[in-house]
Amino acid sequence: MRIRIKKSRRLIRMRSGACEKTIMSDPIILYNGPIYTLDPAHPRAQAVAIRNGRVIAVGSEGKVRAAVTGRAEGINLNGRALIPALTDAHVHLIAHALARRNVRLDDAATLDDALQQIGVAAERLPAGAWVQGRGWDHSRWGRWPTAADLDAVIGDRPAYFSRKDGHSAWVSSAALRLAGITAETPDPVGGAIQRERGEPTGILLETAIDLVRRHIPEPGQEERLAAVREAIEEAHSYGMVGMHLPTSMTPGDGRMTLDDLQTLRERGHLQLRCLVYLGLDGLDAALALGLHSGLGDRWIRLGGIKMFADGSLGSQTADMLAPYEGSSNRGIAVLSSGELRHAVRRAIHGGLAVMVHAIGDAANRKVLDAIEAALPGAPPLSIPNRIEHCQVVHPDDLPRFARLGVIASMQPIHCTADMEVADVLWGKRCAYAYAWRSFLDAGATLAFGSDAPVESLNPWLSVHAAVTRQRPEGTPDGGWYSEQRLTVEEALRGFCYGCAVAAGAAAEQGVIAPGMLADFAILSADPFKLDPSALHTIRAEMTILEGKVVWEQERL
Amino acid sequence: MRIRIKKSRRLIRMRSGACEKTIMSDPIILYNGPIYTLDPAHPRAQAVAIRNGRVIAVGSEGKVRAAVTGRAEGINLNGRALIPALTDAHVHLIAHALARRNVRLDDAATLDDALQQIGVAAERLPAGAWVQGRGWDHSRWGRWPTAADLDAVIGDRPAYFSRKDGHSAWVSSAALRLAGITAETPDPVGGAIQRERGEPTGILLETAIDLVRRHIPEPGQEERLAAVREAIEEAHSYGMVGMHLPTSMTPGDGRMTLDDLQTLRERGHLQLRCLVYLGLDGLDAALALGLHSGLGDRWIRLGGIKMFADGSLGSQTADMLAPYEGSSNRGIAVLSSGELRHAVRRAIHGGLAVMVHAIGDAANRKVLDAIEAALPGAPPLSIPNRIEHCQVVHPDDLPRFARLGVIASMQPIHCTADMEVADVLWGKRCAYAYAWRSFLDAGATLAFGSDAPVESLNPWLSVHAAVTRQRPEGTPDGGWYSEQRLTVEEALRGFCYGCAVAAGAAAEQGVIAPGMLADFAILSADPFKLDPSALHTIRAEMTILEGKVVWEQERL
Repeated sequence: MRIRIKKSRRLIRMRSGACEKTIMSDPIILYNGPIYTLDPAHPRAQAVAIRNGRVIAVGSEGKVRAAVTGRAEGINLNGRALIPALTDAHVHLIAHALARRNVRLDDAATLDDALQQIGVAAERLPAGAWVQGRGWDHSRWGRWPTAADLDAVIGDRPAYFSRKDGHSAWVSSAALRLAGITAETPDPVGGAIQRERGEPTGILLETAIDLVRRHIPEPGQEERLAAVREAIEEAHSYGMVGMHLPTSMTPGDGRMTLDDLQTLRERGHLQLRCLVYLGLDGLDAALALGLHSGLGDRWIRLGGIKMFADGSLGSQTADMLAPYEGSSNRGIAVLSSGELRHAVRRAIHGGLAVMVHAIGDAANRKVLDAIEAALPGAPPLSIPNRIEHCQVVHPDDLPRFARLGVIASMQPIHCTADMEVADVLWGKRCAYAYAWRSFLDAGATLAFGSDAPVESLNPWLSVHAAVTRQRPEGTPDGGWYSEQRLTVEEALRGFCYGCAVAAGAAAEQGVIAPGMLADFAILSADPFKLDPSALHTIRAEMTILEGKVVWEQERL
Repeated sequence: MRIRIKKSRRLIRMRSGACEKTIMSDPIILYNGPIYTLDPAHPRAQAVAIRNGRVIAVGSEGKVRAAVTGRAEGINLNGRALIPALTDAHVHLIAHALARRNVRLDDAATLDDALQQIGVAAERLPAGAWVQGRGWDHSRWGRWPTAADLDAVIGDRPAYFSRKDGHSAWVSSAALRLAGITAETPDPVGGAIQRERGEPTGILLETAIDLVRRHIPEPGQEERLAAVREAIEEAHSYGMVGMHLPTSMTPGDGRMTLDDLQTLRERGHLQLRCLVYLGLDGLDAALALGLHSGLGDRWIRLGGIKMFADGSLGSQTADMLAPYEGSSNRGIAVLSSGELRHAVRRAIHGGLAVMVHAIGDAANRKVLDAIEAALPGAPPLSIPNRIEHCQVVHPDDLPRFARLGVIASMQPIHCTADMEVADVLWGKRCAYAYAWRSFLDAGATLAFGSDAPVESLNPWLSVHAAVTRQRPEGTPDGGWYSEQRLTVEEALRGFCYGCAVAAGAAAEQGVIAPGMLADFAILSADPFKLDPSALHTIRAEMTILEGKVVWEQERL
């Protein structure tokens, strides 16, 4: 049955009271649903009462009603599951927001399919904006595509699409014109402009790609903000209302993120709780200003300083204790141990928590060493230190996370995306790779995220991966290193309570309990009853942020 | 009659409800007082109801009681006046906090008086801390004081007291020893070590002062924090719960202030709403990080960038349109017009509001010019730009404050402290000096403060000065330029609503109305009924911050 609340309706309403001037918001009771509080003391409830954006009572329906005096509004959940709203502990928000505007042609079986996708995408863009995308494969289409094909669906717009291998690009006539490419333009060294009867066709090969690419403007702030608003709406559709935002290695990324988020907020458009990390390039400035982790409020809060200890599995640059299988390569320490210790110490002693990217077992050990060395004499931090990814951690180091109070920030979807590569490159070490069960057993707090745009922002893909250790299509049978599987409750806690702990916000976020913020997801299916193989199909029917409906599934 | 609430008692209490787990705080009704809301729509009330730290109803007692359903606690004001808690719009908090620990000997008529004061002060200091002070005048005492005099009351502590003119210092034996001053120490160039039978007496003259002064350590953070906590308690005793904190010209002052405030907060000791301004030395770092005015929450919020346009009246460095009386000096522009415009533009276009010190009429005009020039194309700021002091403003410039949205941040006590000097140096221009009535008539928002430690932190001295244009002893007769006097209501609004507007916080602070934070001062006397000549004697009987009693007058 349809839940009868319209999108954008405020659950919290004002009424004029008997006094000269009063604001008395009535409580609202959400009832008749299984409510999964994720609070171990009271894990299940039937009803929850909220007022002024916070939970005032949760429990059985009778007892919640008895606890609420005076007028109250009721909302019938009709048996739908309600959980705390989710947070993504690791998102590159602006990059994700911009990337999701690009057209993914990986699945375009025919040129017509591709052109239809492109035409739809172009219509949603502002006038003059470049239409961009990637992933096409002309070997499936029977011929190379042309600028004229593009022009037919997007008109006189500049457009740029890189082939799936990145070695050629397909551009529109407007793009050729903006780049000044004509019949007279010579091929650059190491590249070629594809031509037919002397005229450029719209296909650029190798170094010729850059003749056009360098003319694609960096998106301006308004374009970024519009993209971010769409990404926030996407998050709401998953039941997600918070993000932890590490900076990338690009200098100034932290500045842009903070500037954009504050601007969105000043305009009243930031329906997202953001924990922002500055890059190492911002450490000096943050120390010079005396900023501490925790400065801000529950909409924009400074997390601390993000830094990188190593590279990645796929590029074999994750810093390993022993060489990659069949190789003498141990990966790359992006910061030397000395640099890492120095940076971690400066941050922590300045009141700034660290968030360190560490994928390999050597990198994880070095970061733990650096944090351990920095802690004596350091002031207490209001936000915990954390390691991002923790993809392979030596068993000796696992108990150190709990002992040192370091959050393990992991992305379950990375496990199922990378497991074959991990098998090849890490061999038997995979027994302690993506080892979230071992982390919990060792007392660590897990905070789960997506690493979008590297992977999808959809947290339900990760819930599925954490619970099954399988891809959505069910491979491998029984799950990859299935002893590391989590329960649904544990997986959800990684996206709720674990993120709240990582944000220093567990006093008001992450579980449903009296006094907590009323941030809820009402789900399309009950994750505790659904077959685990379908966990990735869950979406939010409704997302509630501080007592207000910020998203509701449209249904026909 | 005594109000029967103990200090530190929480007005807001939790009760266990009928549910498995609930938090339902009961409303509290404060009744039977004149309540001055400072809200022009409903200026007077008899009762106010609060819940969870906010006002839920205000009005007549009967109507407030009718508006509150269910259980409610009552607090009888017994006729005492209740107003919104005060904010000081201009405090150098750390400097004030440290200065107030020093002994002021200005009033010590005899050496014995001085020694008694010093002994009491020394007892309150931690072991090993320097006892410091200033203001002594041995011409009143009949002889020079000695190190032995000090040693007799403070023992083996280092002590340093500068004479009222700053040209000599009186130090203890421990101070002489720490400085290595013995009978063998030669007099430095330009100074002398006073001696008796060859031995240093404890008096150092001119450059010899520095032989000891350089050994006085800068106070460490713990010492600063302890001093700040005492200063916050002092603020509470006036009914004050907020401060706007400009940085001084000392580089790093903003960093220290932010660091200290965040540390106090992390320890749970920041019972003060702070709006912090960084110095111009922090502008580059703030822009590099993308910080905007408004980042933070209602306890610590970033205001923007403080800069200095000119000097002061007393030193004849305030930048004037015409020369000081009987002189060709027009004062000093600390920043050139070009530098000022550049800095103001960079800040405002980076999302950072400016707070500019401007005392002279030329300085005020230049700042208004710089802000006016910067506004086109600038993003909207969540905190308004402001000018500090505005001591003499040309009548042509007055309407520009309202038109440009610039807050006039003034310190009424400066008027009565400086009026004779102003008469001498500014002559007829005093007709538009400290002209708060003219500012209000021109539509400007006034935010009032103290400039402590330059003047006392006590806001009631400024309320008195604003309403009477007289010193507490009643001079000059009828008040200095009495046409600029304010009503009590207007003066209080400068310390309440005006400060809230200046902080971008008028939606929840500054007046008593439903939805506002429950920040109240319950006063020792009714400022609307008291003879204006006694306004400076008012103190808080009780100070309530977000529904909690943070201070209560002890009574015998």
